[in-house]
Amino acid sequence: MTGGISIYPVGSIGEIQPGDRIADLICQHVSLVGNDVVVVTQKAVSKAEGMVVGVKDDPESKRALILSQSRRVLRQRGELMITETIHGFVCANAGVDYSNVNPGHAALLPRDSDRSARRIRDGIIARTGVSVGVVISDTFGRPWRQGVTDVALGVAGIAAILDLRGTRDWGGRELSATEVCIADEIASAAELVMGKASGIPVAVIRGIDPAWLRESSVAKEVIRPHGGDLFR
Amino acid sequence: MTGGISIYPVGSIGEIQPGDRIADLICQHVSLVGNDVVVVTQKAVSKAEGMVVGVKDDPESKRALILSQSRRVLRQRGELMITETIHGFVCANAGVDYSNVNPGHAALLPRDSDRSARRIRDGIIARTGVSVGVVISDTFGRPWRQGVTDVALGVAGIAAILDLRGTRDWGGRELSATEVCIADEIASAAELVMGKASGIPVAVIRGIDPAWLRESSVAKEVIRPHGGDLFR
Repeated sequence: MTGGISIYPVGSIGEIQPGDRIADLICQHVSLVGNDVVVVTQKAVSKAEGMVVGVKDDPESKRALILSQSRRVLRQRGELMITETIHGFVCANAGVDYSNVNPGHAALLPRDSDRSARRIRDGIIARTGVSVGVVISDTFGRPWRQGVTDVALGVAGIAAILDLRGTRDWGGRELSATEVCIADEIASAAELVMGKASGIPVAVIRGIDPAWLRESSVAKEVIRPHGGDLFR
Repeated sequence: MTGGISIYPVGSIGEIQPGDRIADLICQHVSLVGNDVVVVTQKAVSKAEGMVVGVKDDPESKRALILSQSRRVLRQRGELMITETIHGFVCANAGVDYSNVNPGHAALLPRDSDRSARRIRDGIIARTGVSVGVVISDTFGRPWRQGVTDVALGVAGIAAILDLRGTRDWGGRELSATEVCIADEIASAAELVMGKASGIPVAVIRGIDPAWLRESSVAKEVIRPHGGDLFR
């Protein structure tokens, strides 16, 4: 079979520490080739960037932390809040996450995940001369469907959205719903080899169409403007 | 690099005709091995099952067709309707789709995509003796994020949801948001090699954890009950 892609976990990196240079760790543990796409979990990026904060183990403190990371609350049920984060994402509990961090601490989302992706990409290029794409992934729920999936918080050097508007299908008919969020699909694909419990912070996708590697941004291309959203 | 998965398009099948046996076509065009997961697009399944209907090219007829496939309308803007389909999915225009079908026709969603997946799986096993998983995929939009991604409409022989509740992270802390919808992640991963315009109806994912291959159902595991949904 040909024309496919391969996805590999990079499990040997281990736990990320504040101040770690993720680009260096990646280059030490995997041999990248041109047009590879490197997917890094939000948790790894947040730890490296020092976005882990102490929080008291009571509902009020936890709620205050979520609100400090939110622009507004969309829905609430018990301790679960669906909010729009200060970054513009809509997700549970503003992305505040207590798993895989030390007790009494929580990981927050990176301040600017596109910039985090760009920094990792620049570091890889500086170190290896190899041009890659980088996706920062996180695990989000969604309405109407049970179970979480991974989505992209930030990208660098890889298109967030593939715009097929104006492309014709094989019957010659112009395609309609044709902006594909390949950044989210890449994040989901990578999750299949990373697992939730195993603490693998990085995966590499090899064989992506080179035409997809371009400058891009999740903030600019994926986050839906308020006026264009039927559910905000 | 080891421990990864590979995803291959099966492009040689060509256009599906009413009455085609998809399992036979797959077995003629690709050599499957145990634990492969075969992803088949909804469009291919709908065509094979004769779920393509004639529709007049005016807004009223198109709207009536959408409503005939819907339980209720959640949102509406211009010609776009977000509805809950008769199958329980929430998506644009009840999944009625005019691309890659003959002019004056529209493809509807399969009546029971889990059953469609099971029929394809049974056909492959009968023909080859190889046990595979099958996912029926379709392209859905979602709130808050631009761009479409592929999700699973039906599954057979592969878990729709991976339940990690009670699993501990590498720090020993019990995981919280831990029902992962691997069926949707598999559909998204497959879309990366199928493309929207190229009319590739099938992809094969090799290397999935064999523990994930079990009986399952999108209708029972993924579609969120009304009472558990904050956005319905």
